[in-house]
Amino acid sequence: MISIKMQEQVQSSSVIRAMFEEGKRLAEIHGVENVFDFSIGNPNVEPPEEINEAILEILKTENLMSIHGYMNNSGYEEVRAAIAESINDKFGTAFTQNNILMTVGAAGGLNVIFKTLLNPKDEVITFAPFFGEYKNYVKNYEGELVVISPNTIDFQPNLEEFKEKITPKTKAVIINSPNNPTGVIYSEETIIKLSEILREKQKEFGTDIYLVSDEPYRELAYDNVEVPYLSNYYANTIIGYSFSKSLSLPGERIGYLVIPDQAADYKNIISAANIANRILGFVNAPSLFQRVVAKCLNAKVDIDTYNRNRELLYNGLSSYGYQCIKPEGAFYLFVKTPIENDVEFCNLAKKKNILIVTGTAFGCPGYVRIAYCVAYKTIEKALPGFKALIEEVK
Amino acid sequence: MISIKMQEQVQSSSVIRAMFEEGKRLAEIHGVENVFDFSIGNPNVEPPEEINEAILEILKTENLMSIHGYMNNSGYEEVRAAIAESINDKFGTAFTQNNILMTVGAAGGLNVIFKTLLNPKDEVITFAPFFGEYKNYVKNYEGELVVISPNTIDFQPNLEEFKEKITPKTKAVIINSPNNPTGVIYSEETIIKLSEILREKQKEFGTDIYLVSDEPYRELAYDNVEVPYLSNYYANTIIGYSFSKSLSLPGERIGYLVIPDQAADYKNIISAANIANRILGFVNAPSLFQRVVAKCLNAKVDIDTYNRNRELLYNGLSSYGYQCIKPEGAFYLFVKTPIENDVEFCNLAKKKNILIVTGTAFGCPGYVRIAYCVAYKTIEKALPGFKALIEEVK
Repeated sequence: MISIKMQEQVQSSSVIRAMFEEGKRLAEIHGVENVFDFSIGNPNVEPPEEINEAILEILKTENLMSIHGYMNNSGYEEVRAAIAESINDKFGTAFTQNNILMTVGAAGGLNVIFKTLLNPKDEVITFAPFFGEYKNYVKNYEGELVVISPNTIDFQPNLEEFKEKITPKTKAVIINSPNNPTGVIYSEETIIKLSEILREKQKEFGTDIYLVSDEPYRELAYDNVEVPYLSNYYANTIIGYSFSKSLSLPGERIGYLVIPDQAADYKNIISAANIANRILGFVNAPSLFQRVVAKCLNAKVDIDTYNRNRELLYNGLSSYGYQCIKPEGAFYLFVKTPIENDVEFCNLAKKKNILIVTGTAFGCPGYVRIAYCVAYKTIEKALPGFKALIEEVK
Repeated sequence: MISIKMQEQVQSSSVIRAMFEEGKRLAEIHGVENVFDFSIGNPNVEPPEEINEAILEILKTENLMSIHGYMNNSGYEEVRAAIAESINDKFGTAFTQNNILMTVGAAGGLNVIFKTLLNPKDEVITFAPFFGEYKNYVKNYEGELVVISPNTIDFQPNLEEFKEKITPKTKAVIINSPNNPTGVIYSEETIIKLSEILREKQKEFGTDIYLVSDEPYRELAYDNVEVPYLSNYYANTIIGYSFSKSLSLPGERIGYLVIPDQAADYKNIISAANIANRILGFVNAPSLFQRVVAKCLNAKVDIDTYNRNRELLYNGLSSYGYQCIKPEGAFYLFVKTPIENDVEFCNLAKKKNILIVTGTAFGCPGYVRIAYCVAYKTIEKALPGFKALIEEVK
């Protein structure tokens, strides 16, 4: 009796559930400490102290109605103003509160913006490998996700193919840098070229093409690599930010959209996004946490912990002969499987109690994603398994 | 460049915005204390003390990762178990955590359940007067809202017309009791009859028809009137609950769905609702507030404040000759306009600095909704205006 669309979803999700159940089964047999779960992008670094300090201060100083009450659907004005100012300080932009819409995480923000923009059959382009949920977010509004095949040399987007696949029906392009699943940061050169292509194609087709930037990993960049701020390169940019990873608050569902004045049809987008936020049932981003993040805009999780994991895992796997790009951000390593079939490789890994995700799930077969947001010890204990695995299949 | 659907939304919402702007304009001219805003259903009674006590206790006793982290999309198991137990205690049901899905408020829950159930063109029936957002929630999933005309005698649902309008395409019926905008509680007799009709029609058409109960006002019932618990009357019931009004937490976006074992296709509904929660971008209900409400299941706002407002407003308006049903719950009074045109009446009221909402907005012209979740003094100061208003038009 559930809808046809959701029947398909239930069927395909049962595969993931099966994997999850298998992990639980393994943990029961071998003990949870001997099962190495690298499958989920769930922060394992504690939120910074500032978070709970901010909560306590808010409870002490603000009145109950304004802590937990309704506000404008787009969020508290002072929170939005503080966020705009913080972005301006960091990236030389000139946003005001009117460019910021508080959302229920980045996932909420992306749904709001696709609801706002997409007519049925509109096309949204993304670059493989990509976060699988984009397909769902686009399909929610009858749009069609067009996937550009991966550039497996350095995992920067494949701009040649991109150019060819833009059509008059292309309404948006969604990118994600630092990237899930590769950890690659799209370079300034990439962003400049990508913007040029978009401007050309807008002119050619007489359309507006929005560049939607999904940025949950912006603050997780290693070795001081810069993550270009896209609105500085392309006018029709919309940014979807989340505090889930930067502050380790994934359960609290707090993020925002940036909709710049320069974006075509700016006023209608803002109005429509506000309404979409309401009618999709978000209504507003959680009120207490709006105030909390406004007080923690310069706080950050301890990224060194992730960095140590990155070094240990990357160096270990490389020394065994695995091929992979050293990630510059996020907490994922995207590794070429030593056998062609990544699904089969994941099954072999499972026999060593190692849980990882197929590249196929990200539109890039022949690879696997290893999420290293786990305890250092987990990596140490899993490395011999990875070593044995490559030796077996070679 | 926004989607066609959202263009319509922006246009129609500009009317509401105009009203809001008008209110602000009036406040600037006459002073905010001389403008009487009865237009919004925003709780004005403080959250109970237990809320902030619960937050403090959680911060003190739980570890940071489990306070703010990810959990299963359906919510923390122990929170869901506590809610199930609390419902069982109050209503003699036998739910477990497996029947509860934590949601981003009731608005989030209703979107999740319509996403789960509706194929394009499926019909959802509701009874006028009704909360206008239902139309949007159903349209989000290409469904069609079928509105049963109001029974203006006592504002119980018009069951004769209901019977006639159920078709093989009827997938769900959505009801809301205590009702927004009437404050009426659907009686046990109503619920029994409605359930019988649904069972008959299910048999006749060989379909399952889900009764979706939107219950943000369940705890706001006066004079100890009982609000029947629908799953005790009809197997295919799905309940959407919110803590927004019962605990005055509308900004925090916290509620849940109850999906009983007895509901047809229960297992698939649960699975699909979980996935819908994720892919619509809610992902999960805010984590800290899941734990907070679990600790406050017996807490309640001071309903006497609303009750005093109810008495003052109802008695005042009645004494001037206004006709209305005395509300048994929620914080709304639904009043017959002394002139036929409710839009015109709202405009006349505005001239007395009184802001109220047309019945037309709830599918019931010739009436207005007065939200009395305001300061007692606001009602006292507005009453002379209401009196002058009816005298002028009579």
